[in-house]
Amino acid sequence: MGQLDSLSLTEIRRDLHRYPESGWKEFRTTALLAEELDERGFDLFFGGEALDETARLGVPPADEISAARKRARRNGAPACYLDQMDGITGLVAEKRYGSAGPTVGVRIDIDALEIREASDDDHRPARLGFASEYSNTMHACGHDGHTSIGLGLARAIDEEGGFDGTLKLFFQPAEEGGRGGKPMSRSGHLDDVEYFFALHLGLGNETGTIIAGYEHPQPNAKLDVTFSGESSHAGKAPEDGRNALQALSAAIQNLYAIPRHSDGVTRINIGHVESPNPQSVVSDAATMRIEVRGGSIDLKEYMLERAERTVRHAGAMHSVDVETDRYGETTTFTADDELIDLVATAAADVPTVDRITRRQTFAASEDASYLIRRVQNSGGVATYLGIGASNVAGHHNSHFDIDETALELGVAVLAASIRSLDGD
Amino acid sequence: MGQLDSLSLTEIRRDLHRYPESGWKEFRTTALLAEELDERGFDLFFGGEALDETARLGVPPADEISAARKRARRNGAPACYLDQMDGITGLVAEKRYGSAGPTVGVRIDIDALEIREASDDDHRPARLGFASEYSNTMHACGHDGHTSIGLGLARAIDEEGGFDGTLKLFFQPAEEGGRGGKPMSRSGHLDDVEYFFALHLGLGNETGTIIAGYEHPQPNAKLDVTFSGESSHAGKAPEDGRNALQALSAAIQNLYAIPRHSDGVTRINIGHVESPNPQSVVSDAATMRIEVRGGSIDLKEYMLERAERTVRHAGAMHSVDVETDRYGETTTFTADDELIDLVATAAADVPTVDRITRRQTFAASEDASYLIRRVQNSGGVATYLGIGASNVAGHHNSHFDIDETALELGVAVLAASIRSLDGD
Amino acid sequence: MGQLDSLSLTEIRRDLHRYPESGWKEFRTTALLAEELDERGFDLFFGGEALDETARLGVPPADEISAARKRARRNGAPACYLDQMDGITGLVAEKRYGSAGPTVGVRIDIDALEIREASDDDHRPARLGFASEYSNTMHACGHDGHTSIGLGLARAIDEEGGFDGTLKLFFQPAEEGGRGGKPMSRSGHLDDVEYFFALHLGLGNETGTIIAGYEHPQPNAKLDVTFSGESSHAGKAPEDGRNALQALSAAIQNLYAIPRHSDGVTRINIGHVESPNPQSVVSDAATMRIEVRGGSIDLKEYMLERAERTVRHAGAMHSVDVETDRYGETTTFTADDELIDLVATAAADVPTVDRITRRQTFAASEDASYLIRRVQNSGGVATYLGIGASNVAGHHNSHFDIDETALELGVAVLAASIRSLDGD
Amino acid sequence: MGQLDSLSLTEIRRDLHRYPESGWKEFRTTALLAEELDERGFDLFFGGEALDETARLGVPPADEISAARKRARRNGAPACYLDQMDGITGLVAEKRYGSAGPTVGVRIDIDALEIREASDDDHRPARLGFASEYSNTMHACGHDGHTSIGLGLARAIDEEGGFDGTLKLFFQPAEEGGRGGKPMSRSGHLDDVEYFFALHLGLGNETGTIIAGYEHPQPNAKLDVTFSGESSHAGKAPEDGRNALQALSAAIQNLYAIPRHSDGVTRINIGHVESPNPQSVVSDAATMRIEVRGGSIDLKEYMLERAERTVRHAGAMHSVDVETDRYGETTTFTADDELIDLVATAAADVPTVDRITRRQTFAASEDASYLIRRVQNSGGVATYLGIGASNVAGHHNSHFDIDETALELGVAVLAASIRSLDGD
Repeated sequence: MGQLDSLSLTEIRRDLHRYPESGWKEFRTTALLAEELDERGFDLFFGGEALDETARLGVPPADEISAARKRARRNGAPACYLDQMDGITGLVAEKRYGSAGPTVGVRIDIDALEIREASDDDHRPARLGFASEYSNTMHACGHDGHTSIGLGLARAIDEEGGFDGTLKLFFQPAEEGGRGGKPMSRSGHLDDVEYFFALHLGLGNETGTIIAGYEHPQPNAKLDVTFSGESSHAGKAPEDGRNALQALSAAIQNLYAIPRHSDGVTRINIGHVESPNPQSVVSDAATMRIEVRGGSIDLKEYMLERAERTVRHAGAMHSVDVETDRYGETTTFTADDELIDLVATAAADVPTVDRITRRQTFAASEDASYLIRRVQNSGGVATYLGIGASNVAGHHNSHFDIDETALELGVAVLAASIRSLDGD
Repeated sequence: MGQLDSLSLTEIRRDLHRYPESGWKEFRTTALLAEELDERGFDLFFGGEALDETARLGVPPADEISAARKRARRNGAPACYLDQMDGITGLVAEKRYGSAGPTVGVRIDIDALEIREASDDDHRPARLGFASEYSNTMHACGHDGHTSIGLGLARAIDEEGGFDGTLKLFFQPAEEGGRGGKPMSRSGHLDDVEYFFALHLGLGNETGTIIAGYEHPQPNAKLDVTFSGESSHAGKAPEDGRNALQALSAAIQNLYAIPRHSDGVTRINIGHVESPNPQSVVSDAATMRIEVRGGSIDLKEYMLERAERTVRHAGAMHSVDVETDRYGETTTFTADDELIDLVATAAADVPTVDRITRRQTFAASEDASYLIRRVQNSGGVATYLGIGASNVAGHHNSHFDIDETALELGVAVLAASIRSLDGD
Repeated sequence: MGQLDSLSLTEIRRDLHRYPESGWKEFRTTALLAEELDERGFDLFFGGEALDETARLGVPPADEISAARKRARRNGAPACYLDQMDGITGLVAEKRYGSAGPTVGVRIDIDALEIREASDDDHRPARLGFASEYSNTMHACGHDGHTSIGLGLARAIDEEGGFDGTLKLFFQPAEEGGRGGKPMSRSGHLDDVEYFFALHLGLGNETGTIIAGYEHPQPNAKLDVTFSGESSHAGKAPEDGRNALQALSAAIQNLYAIPRHSDGVTRINIGHVESPNPQSVVSDAATMRIEVRGGSIDLKEYMLERAERTVRHAGAMHSVDVETDRYGETTTFTADDELIDLVATAAADVPTVDRITRRQTFAASEDASYLIRRVQNSGGVATYLGIGASNVAGHHNSHFDIDETALELGVAVLAASIRSLDGD
Repeated sequence: MGQLDSLSLTEIRRDLHRYPESGWKEFRTTALLAEELDERGFDLFFGGEALDETARLGVPPADEISAARKRARRNGAPACYLDQMDGITGLVAEKRYGSAGPTVGVRIDIDALEIREASDDDHRPARLGFASEYSNTMHACGHDGHTSIGLGLARAIDEEGGFDGTLKLFFQPAEEGGRGGKPMSRSGHLDDVEYFFALHLGLGNETGTIIAGYEHPQPNAKLDVTFSGESSHAGKAPEDGRNALQALSAAIQNLYAIPRHSDGVTRINIGHVESPNPQSVVSDAATMRIEVRGGSIDLKEYMLERAERTVRHAGAMHSVDVETDRYGETTTFTADDELIDLVATAAADVPTVDRITRRQTFAASEDASYLIRRVQNSGGVATYLGIGASNVAGHHNSHFDIDETALELGVAVLAASIRSLDGD
């Protein structure tokens, strides 16, 4: 019997909360999901079969991934599933319940954040003993709850006799930073999906609220920049250096000064800046991370193109080499009326739901956008559900927690929505 | 009996090499020196009595100092001496041998560097088992040898019947970075010193070479800068931030552009740059370290004044608070002919000395300069000896090591020089 | 008999076109207007009585103003009116037709641009011989037409028996750059105005079109910045300089990088940059002009405050003095329904009008906004009319010209609107 | 008879002072020189025959040159000589006096500066009526005196019976800015010169002083930079611009920050900065002039290479095109002992000489350096004479004037020096 089988959704969420795994390191999470879904007769696609490995962004160094895999094993992840992943997280689980009906896809993001969880007694996970066991990783965005809902949905459909169609569950790694959506969208598993759902807990909505069609997240892109120069003794031979820090600061000054755009909102910001040389040595290395956003894909591309040009020539100005890596990226989408109607109707029948909003602008970025566009481009319809869950603290905060009663509610709305497709 | 008493100079040097202590953390070193000098009848002045506590620069955080003291205790530093330091390293040891003769001062710097020592077999300390026990500290500049010579000098004078005068040994902490010289120069202990010697091993000179008068080190100053702004969500409210990173990059651009000076050499460089905010958050904190140098004290002051002005207004331009801390500082000096003659004559009688250079420009910075100027301003004379010691690798390199035969040679030249004052 | 009396509106417009006068130099224009309006029995308020002299912005140097006055005299401006202006242009002309009715104000801007007019035969004013006589001044925005309409309106009201009320004509100087609106708004003459009209020809609308309520122009502000440093020989004593050019370039880099604002559109741009020192001399002077805009008054103020802070500290960073002068400024307004209705109704009865738009966003900046807000704040209502006038070239272009048939049409719509107030 | 024939050296100098001609515009000066030298039987080489036309630097626009030629004609320059120049100033005049003796070259620079001359009565040229007739040109460096000495030398040699050798006079245009020396050095006329003299009046030396060997002028280079972008409406479409002003300011910030060099003195400065767009329009054009200097040719090249790289990438960073033109350039030289001896000896016999310095460092830049190096590289010897001439104001000052008694003295020293070669 699998380790999660006997656990309630709340218990599963707490287990995952205690062992959070950040992007591309979700080995334990994936393996435990696989264990139960395997028992339930789902076909499983791991790693390179679940996503396009070459399109992965923001992948941590190999030694960190390897350490994460070992840690997963130590903390109970079954070796047989770990072995199938071949170092790449991400899982697509598929089960055909009926031959006539449609193929339905659901995307569940499973990664945690690199944040240190609060340890004070005001923080319920700490008080009740399920706070993160790892010093710098925390489920501070609710993906532990999403994962729990995903498994709960499989149980619900399974145990209530399935539905006339095929269910595909997309357990996506590395949502944070927008790193896993694009590669998963290119897996091929989406191409025959006719109805597609993504979901998010919380987002400022109280438990009982359902947003049937979140949409229009802000496209963004993240660029990691490495300036590589040459060090020299700053007193004895300043002319021998190729100063990475001068390149960096020229870049930063000019990045913030990329012209505003008359078509709409543009944003740029820089973080994770580091140039560690001692002050007596001309800097040979400097790194930074850029994030650009735009009110549309074109605006994001405008910022990205200008940013890349700026860093390239800021380097060249100082004879400093520049490498840029796309760390993450998201796009945008519009929810489909057909599914909004369907979700709204289904939700209306769930007794614990007390407020339904049809459409709402998603105020942040989301790489489910890639999966949704893939489905829509292949002729399917899609929406992104907001499942209210009262919070004591905002997302990405070290005191983040969710109202766990939202888990069953989320399963109920999704299951009802899917089951209502039956009648087609 | 003290722990070092029975050890040869080479053995002492190796013991110190194994337990290196960086600036303001030299608790074990100081305590072991105190133990033997106490036995030898020296009057001891610790911490606040050995230096002007308020003039200390680049002092590490209190918790680091406290941890260093505890580590010293664990590694054999006698508690009674540790207690007398009251958390401040530095030791002046004084012994009156004769009432008629002059007061002679010798400055010995005792601190190590924050460098990780090489562990390969090509590195003699590693091969012979006396490499640093601490992961990020190393005697990579030879101060372990200096300390050993200082103790050797006390032994030599003592055991050969003293001389007609008073000997003052200045065991100076925190020479690296130029942090301990200024406070020790203000201790008052130098004011009656008539003859003053400082010394350095190596510096590119082979064993057997003596430089009787190193002089004209380049004055420098180090400035730690902290920009404190306010974070905000870079996408949702960029205007709410006060961007420390924009202040930092404006500062860097303009610091390197401080005008050249027609009076001579000026230098500026920046290192240890960090601004850790995520790329999605406007930076609320950025730090850097500046080093300025000048061919003269005035030129150094020119650079320092301009640098402080630049960072102050770079911050204000972005409504960002700026704090600057003087991390370290050095000045310059000219060696006195009288002592150069004396050292050159004395060295000529030491059989292991095979080459003597009278004067040479000191190609780096040195905060012994403060002690030397204090002596000279009080009417004394001073010089700075170079004691050749063949090296396999340059100073501040992780493979640095010294030819230990230079230790006895150094003691011999110093003892002969001091003894020759007897005849005055 | 006055010089304009016998001229048609087209002839007047062409006369003004030939002798264009830029902001605060409109001596001839004002004097000729005064001459005819004086004959028609209007009370005239000149210069300091027409506007708040202390609130004037972007005033040219005294010698230029004096030269402009002399030129006006040479080109036929009657001395008696010139004398009344006391060096300050701007005219309020008031006539009471009936005691019971309302006070109606009309704002007409009279200044030209500092643009060189095209001289080729494709340019009608050149071909027909009424192109600008002055080498660097041109009526390229249609204010010659506005002025002609203003006088035409006085004629129309006068000659058709007046109306039951008081007419106040505000001939505003220095609209270009937003320099004259604010001072005129503070003259006191607006405080009893119950109905207020401003107007503009062209703006991309064909002849025959009327916009009854242009509104929401973008608030902007212009800042002239002078950096004053100290020169020195760049080879022999670079350190003696206080480099105005370094201050300027630090300012520019950081001005464009003022953070975007989440409340809406912000803009910044810089022009008229000059630093004339030879390349062998450290710059002691640099000037530039900044323009900021915002989607609201608050956003404009945000940009202005940040810009002022930036230039101030960019100067201080280089020990360079900074002076800032507000060159011009505009605000924004919403047109009143009551007047939109009235204009739309009146225009519908004018046979040459063939299209009426009720409300439209004004895509540029306008300092009539100050006058309009003053009227509205005093309890009156106001609107800003667009009077279509087909153009062969855009505003501010050296080939700009207007379809002169729009002049009579404009008078007709305004006169009908005012007359319709009669019936109140 | 030529126009200058009957004039004394002082009268000639005053005539030239009154009609000063800046670099590449010295038409009248050249023509009048040619007239007298032609009469005296010198072979004349004009323009393209006097210098390598393709190596000219900093040449003004064609219309300015054409206007200068016309002005020269109006002010008495004989047409026949003007015609021979074909628009290019510069004159080599050669006369063979004896067949056996050596070829002797003398370089005389003839251009004026673009400075407005003082007009107050304290300024002797103004008081006596020979101040510049042209509003923005002035002989403020003494080249009028040099030219007068050159002609005086021809007279002296001629009238005292020649010498046993060949005399070549190099009347060089465009010395200011370092624009004419290089092209003249490549003319071929220098290749057989065995003894070469250049000279300068004043330079802080009192009348009566002779410097026999000025040397080691500082190499410099001047770079004119044009940034060409694309304008756009700063409010409506800031993104459509390619902002030349952003490129310019990024360049300036980074140019001043080119690293100092440990080999010696480096300098950089920027002037003549202009970007004329109105503040409401994104800048499409910006220009500046850079000057770099170095304590050696290598150091000058280091600065030049870095400066070119910086402006190139500052442009590219903003998608702005960059054009760079070498405006002027100088090199350096060492005077030859043989000629220093010869001049010192000859000067000692001139009664009006009262102080002789053998060697002195030339504290500025000089493009005679190119001619001198050419002679030396071809096997000849060369020196650069300082001819003391008391000044009331420094060179390049609007009150500059020279003690005219130095003119005859200069001729005497030069003639004696050349004549002393006779005896070889």
